[in-house]
Amino acid sequence: MTAPEELLDQVSFDSHGLVPVVVQEADSGQVLMLAYANREALALALEKGQGVYWSRRRQEIWVKGATSGNRQQLVEARLDCDGDAVLYLVKQSGPACHRGTLSCFDQREEKP
Amino acid sequence: MTAPEELLDQVSFDSHGLVPVVVQEADSGQVLMLAYANREALALALEKGQGVYWSRRRQEIWVKGATSGNRQQLVEARLDCDGDAVLYLVKQSGPACHRGTLSCFDQREEKP
Repeated sequence: MTAPEELLDQVSFDSHGLVPVVVQEADSGQVLMLAYANREALALALEKGQGVYWSRRRQEIWVKGATSGNRQQLVEARLDCDGDAVLYLVKQSGPACHRGTLSCFDQREEKP
Repeated sequence: MTAPEELLDQVSFDSHGLVPVVVQEADSGQVLMLAYANREALALALEKGQGVYWSRRRQEIWVKGATSGNRQQLVEARLDCDGDAVLYLVKQSGPACHRGTLSCFDQREEKP
């Protein structure tokens, strides 16, 4: 993994100071969610080895699973070729999605 | 797959009319790139069964591989739980990244 400070300095944050983060299960390769991080969230993620984001709705640092218990162990963080997207490889405890599905991209369940 | 019109109507485009698109290789599960689509690009992708995006730099519709030949066959498009991110599952011809690597998230090659 690239050294944390080096990775942080290579990120092109957008005009809101955010970068999109693709979150992928390290073992299965399943894409779990797309979230956003600011520099502080990314630094915390790298420091703690956890999925940490910036909640655009709540406008605050969001440690994934802090309330639900469905934490993410950060295995690796990668930056894309032009530095404006991040990939977290994580080990997900429980479902990643608030609906109770493993992935936020799982099809909505049709209630009969 | 959700019907194209139904999917299009469920997308929450941002203030620029865009939605981020996570692009994943359908067979290997490798995350290839993060790009953006507007409604027209997404409609074209679904209609043509190809990776089609909106180039934020060139400000135009971007049919992936139209110049490089490294096209993407769109296998499936999925929307996330809150409708503000799309996942394309694709079959990638050649490298997805302009650097010649399969994925834009592959580590930069260190030139000795």
